[in-house]
Amino acid sequence: MLTSIGEYERRISKVRSAMVSQSVDTVLLSVGHDLPYLTGYTAMPLERLTMLALHRGGTPLLFVPRLEAPRVAEMPGLFEIVPWDETVEPLDLVAAACSGSSTIAIGDQTWARFLVGLGHRLPGVRWERAVDVVGDLRMRKSSAEVEALRAAAEAVDAIAAELQSGHIPLIGRTEAEVSADLSQRILARGHQKVNFAIVAAGENAASPHHHPGSRVIQPDEVVLCDFGGTMNGYCSDITRCVVTGEISSEVAAAYEVLMSAQSAGVAAGQIGVRCEEVDSTTRQIITEGGYGEYFVHRTGHGIGMEEHEDPYMVSGDVRLIEEGFAYSVEPGIYIPNKWGLRLEDIVVATAEGPLSLNQADHNLHSVSA
Amino acid sequence: MLTSIGEYERRISKVRSAMVSQSVDTVLLSVGHDLPYLTGYTAMPLERLTMLALHRGGTPLLFVPRLEAPRVAEMPGLFEIVPWDETVEPLDLVAAACSGSSTIAIGDQTWARFLVGLGHRLPGVRWERAVDVVGDLRMRKSSAEVEALRAAAEAVDAIAAELQSGHIPLIGRTEAEVSADLSQRILARGHQKVNFAIVAAGENAASPHHHPGSRVIQPDEVVLCDFGGTMNGYCSDITRCVVTGEISSEVAAAYEVLMSAQSAGVAAGQIGVRCEEVDSTTRQIITEGGYGEYFVHRTGHGIGMEEHEDPYMVSGDVRLIEEGFAYSVEPGIYIPNKWGLRLEDIVVATAEGPLSLNQADHNLHSVSA
Repeated sequence: MLTSIGEYERRISKVRSAMVSQSVDTVLLSVGHDLPYLTGYTAMPLERLTMLALHRGGTPLLFVPRLEAPRVAEMPGLFEIVPWDETVEPLDLVAAACSGSSTIAIGDQTWARFLVGLGHRLPGVRWERAVDVVGDLRMRKSSAEVEALRAAAEAVDAIAAELQSGHIPLIGRTEAEVSADLSQRILARGHQKVNFAIVAAGENAASPHHHPGSRVIQPDEVVLCDFGGTMNGYCSDITRCVVTGEISSEVAAAYEVLMSAQSAGVAAGQIGVRCEEVDSTTRQIITEGGYGEYFVHRTGHGIGMEEHEDPYMVSGDVRLIEEGFAYSVEPGIYIPNKWGLRLEDIVVATAEGPLSLNQADHNLHSVSA
Repeated sequence: MLTSIGEYERRISKVRSAMVSQSVDTVLLSVGHDLPYLTGYTAMPLERLTMLALHRGGTPLLFVPRLEAPRVAEMPGLFEIVPWDETVEPLDLVAAACSGSSTIAIGDQTWARFLVGLGHRLPGVRWERAVDVVGDLRMRKSSAEVEALRAAAEAVDAIAAELQSGHIPLIGRTEAEVSADLSQRILARGHQKVNFAIVAAGENAASPHHHPGSRVIQPDEVVLCDFGGTMNGYCSDITRCVVTGEISSEVAAAYEVLMSAQSAGVAAGQIGVRCEEVDSTTRQIITEGGYGEYFVHRTGHGIGMEEHEDPYMVSGDVRLIEEGFAYSVEPGIYIPNKWGLRLEDIVVATAEGPLSLNQADHNLHSVSA
């Protein structure tokens, strides 16, 4: 997605308002997604420090290793590039730029080594999380951001349809081979990056974050596929399950409960509702269906430039859903050592109600390939 | 590489000795490579906290999200798994496990959000970097680790030979296409993961960390390829340049200087020599050759489980080279807006002198494809 300088300026201005209202003097951003959200530049995740120092006023300074400076797309007026040389300690430069700051908010994914080093150089500073001043803004997606999420969702929907129609061979292949196949399809459908492609067969599907391995997929078992990537800066994330042959009555019964729970969870996401209510909605249906103890994770997570970002659809997240919130609704039922099921869509909150960006069929398909 | 429980125990014991000598009470490890180095488990880089709390005595505790607990290979006696549920704040658990600690060393790549949260919960604690107690150990590679690095180096050497012999088409393809081609070859040669595949043509090669893009490779230009991945837990990293046609006298002259500098840098890596001397050796030759101002980065970095790790071959790194140190020697010459050249091998320090793990030809090849 192409973002204009004007849009970046608008975002920085809103962050500065939040800094004032939350008594934050300086925001420091490094690896992670707050930096590209505000400047268009993504830091390399390396030991050479890249860091933006954003005060309440003045031109933000982007400290970058000199050898990476040519990578930065200049944005005249938006920020100033400060390249540092190999024999300089860049934390000294950042600390100097923060002199006088009492409260500094630092990006969530910044490496701890840099925060430790800054802590030593800036004693007495109170450290907070940058998400407190950038997160609110990032949660409310603009229409251009929603369009980017929709395009990414359509791409993975097409792959889910290939899975459900048996066009992606399963039986006799390893989970790792199917994962690699899904990854290639994600790229072929226009994503620039694969973020994950979980393939979990049989009893492995009972581990929600299973790492696809050498297990060979057999006939008549559940195969859970949860995959997503980044397309033009925004993420996709979808989960569909299929059965390689006959669907047992046990699995069919659980899937029916899961499908109602997921659908009710999507419908619950009305503007003004607490995020945790999406979770309690799916959980109640799964619990009433008798599977409560087997639903071992939250219902969902925000999504945007990052696969997992604020808000979270979990007990305790009492934020009220606003227009433009985008998040996953992905309840699951996991019977240890037997099988697991999960069903996931990305949903956007709109004035007309929750809009599911994923349209791939929600039924449990039997495939023979 | 398969590591035995006994080897993990030996490593933890050495870390504990370093903790005592450096007055560190607790080590906290999350994402990054210290955790798998000590336990075999790699944390998922997500907002759900995975953290090992290692004190000077007792059984280390590995806090993991309950849904990821099935991923952990249990190591009886080595560490205890503490799964946490979705509605629990795991930082409260970690902070409780750290009660009484005055100095805590935290893993370099731990997300800042967790350190900020721990800082609030543990006021008065002095925070240090875990690399201070784990890094020395990780720098001295065991023979099994050197063998893993050698196998990875051989794999990318074979790809470099394909590049030099013209088996990888260049002219008419984009940098991004060649990068994808190199990535596929890295996987096909036994790596599990591609870490980077820089392809920079013509004037783009003057940007050392260039991101391969849509630029189409032309005849008679320098193409710089710097690529590596992870194979059985250990990294490869190699740079070779080729020219798509005729090598200009200007480029040939610079390459001759570069090749002598690189070779002298490799030879300088004797046990007992300061790391920075490897850098000053290459830099002096390049400076005497008249290209000093165009060598804009350090000479090299340590390598092991991580692409870039301690030590660094840079002015100021006064550590003495020990047996088992593994690092890159990669000087470069970059003429802005014209071309760039870099030549890189991975070297291991041995009692018999520096051993280059990469054996791909060091000459500048002209390719016609």
